[in-house]
Amino acid sequence: MSRFFSEKYAALTPYTPGEQPQDMQYVKLNTNESPFPPSEKALRAAAELLRPLQLYSDPDCRRVREKLAQRYGVTPDMVLVTNGSDEALNFAFMAFCDSAHGAAFPGISYGFYPVFAQVNGVPYEEIALKPDFSVDADDYCGIGKTVFIANPNAPTGIALPPAQIEKILHSNPDNVVVIDEAYVDFGGESCVPLVHKYENLLVVQTFSKSRSLAGGRLGYAIGNAALIRDLDSLRYSTNPYNVNSATLALGEAILDDEDATRQNCAVIMENRAYTAGALRALGFEVLDSRANFLFARSGQIDGALLYQKLKARGVLVRHFTRPEIAQFNRITVGTRQQMDALLTAIRAILEETK
Amino acid sequence: MSRFFSEKYAALTPYTPGEQPQDMQYVKLNTNESPFPPSEKALRAAAELLRPLQLYSDPDCRRVREKLAQRYGVTPDMVLVTNGSDEALNFAFMAFCDSAHGAAFPGISYGFYPVFAQVNGVPYEEIALKPDFSVDADDYCGIGKTVFIANPNAPTGIALPPAQIEKILHSNPDNVVVIDEAYVDFGGESCVPLVHKYENLLVVQTFSKSRSLAGGRLGYAIGNAALIRDLDSLRYSTNPYNVNSATLALGEAILDDEDATRQNCAVIMENRAYTAGALRALGFEVLDSRANFLFARSGQIDGALLYQKLKARGVLVRHFTRPEIAQFNRITVGTRQQMDALLTAIRAILEETK
Repeated sequence: MSRFFSEKYAALTPYTPGEQPQDMQYVKLNTNESPFPPSEKALRAAAELLRPLQLYSDPDCRRVREKLAQRYGVTPDMVLVTNGSDEALNFAFMAFCDSAHGAAFPGISYGFYPVFAQVNGVPYEEIALKPDFSVDADDYCGIGKTVFIANPNAPTGIALPPAQIEKILHSNPDNVVVIDEAYVDFGGESCVPLVHKYENLLVVQTFSKSRSLAGGRLGYAIGNAALIRDLDSLRYSTNPYNVNSATLALGEAILDDEDATRQNCAVIMENRAYTAGALRALGFEVLDSRANFLFARSGQIDGALLYQKLKARGVLVRHFTRPEIAQFNRITVGTRQQMDALLTAIRAILEETK
Repeated sequence: MSRFFSEKYAALTPYTPGEQPQDMQYVKLNTNESPFPPSEKALRAAAELLRPLQLYSDPDCRRVREKLAQRYGVTPDMVLVTNGSDEALNFAFMAFCDSAHGAAFPGISYGFYPVFAQVNGVPYEEIALKPDFSVDADDYCGIGKTVFIANPNAPTGIALPPAQIEKILHSNPDNVVVIDEAYVDFGGESCVPLVHKYENLLVVQTFSKSRSLAGGRLGYAIGNAALIRDLDSLRYSTNPYNVNSATLALGEAILDDEDATRQNCAVIMENRAYTAGALRALGFEVLDSRANFLFARSGQIDGALLYQKLKARGVLVRHFTRPEIAQFNRITVGTRQQMDALLTAIRAILEETK
């Protein structure tokens, strides 16, 4: 920290992203990316749609907003387009929380929520999960804070039914409830249809997982037009050209090929069931995931040790040191080949630690 | 504004970007873009460098940082890479200003500075330009605030010699001085070499102008490693994957073809001299620009009216309504053909308003 840095950040602990080895030598199952590239059809179409790079990108992101609106049955003024969904989440913390109006989210969830709260000077409450690692909606009813819930939750993968989320929405009419649906396309049920019923609902989604565009950075938020206007005024007050032309073109082309997205998701869900079954057969406890990852613990080997031994064998998964979940590892679901490489490595590790 | 929006933004007026007509029918001289696309060589190289889009982009932006460090004679830990330079500027307002530590910048300058100050709850002082529209460095000496100076300044195009900026740096040892060099490659003199001498200097630059990548969104800041760490901790607390893979690949390839950048800048400077001469011959006052735009007023026709009449003839320039500069228009310097279209339109307009 330099001596010029504002004191308000004295206690700030930045987010730690998952390892991103630039040498690509691992079976990389640690950051919940898709194993599939965007479809050839989408890539070709994006090249056609690409605006000349020497001109600014469209600050209104008009065409992508229109296509998202059509896809989700809302109007374009109910959609905000962002530089990854992290930007949408940060804007939501900026807009709907402040020093007098705190945030609440599960104690085990996306590790960025407490960082967003800290960087924005927002007091926050972390609410424990139930012993089965699910979110208890009752804990959030009438809480009087801005609520952030990842659904399906990360790193557990467990989904909350929209009926449970409605209880939270209904009992917090003066607070925004942000549902972070980064992983919803892998078997979760979206809350987007509820935006017509609850003016306090904001749903955040991303192109990084089901739509194979983690490297392109494209996220969005859907909510009633007044909420979106608030977020947009922050976007226009910090970085109006927040999404570059190449990403807008890719986003548009990918939305025109939703069949490819659906097919990829079906393969991931199939590989998830296959891998969960194999892990259970090896004595693992595997939580019920509706996401493109599994959260699993072995009764035989320590979680951190398994992570290290897998890494030594060229398989990268994600381990969190927080005591409640330190026995687990979060394993991205990739191709069948990647899953078999993982399972082979795990079998060998279990064998050698017998 | 929704009823959920934090009261701290009650008075916020977002930035208004220049018009970005999506239909492309204008001779577009209103947002200081380059008329030249990135070089073919750079575009081909970028396609080779592009990381698979389904994987996250490199949050360290390592390769672009290394190339920028090499280009500017600094170490990679002295470089921050951002989603356009607006993001770097916003981080600087966040990091080095707060409610107790205000900002100072010229009253006529990049219109985003007061917006960054407002959105971050920073009190600010706007300092008048001299009657000749230049910045008076003495006004900033010992000011005790975080200083933001665009150099060359916008929309005037007038540059301050680094020796003048050194006076500001030297007399404000406990305050960061941010020099925004978006336009420096068109004949200005950069302050980057001074980062070795002044720990309170941050220089911000962009790929949007001289490097033809406005649509790609790539900016950077150069300063001593402690300042960069502060900014980076904000980046990692808001949006660690802030620059997408396609843009990183483009940035890298463009830095490998600095000849193309230099050649384009030379053409722009030549066209600037040509256009300034022609405008002066038509009775315009034209400020001494070291940027890729001209700021000019006619003695014969009102500034707003000229803007409107040019637009009606398909030539888009930028007009600002602020009284001190309302007689001027800011005209991006493009190709010779674009400049001739502008001059033909102006001649016709002057003729009809005689």
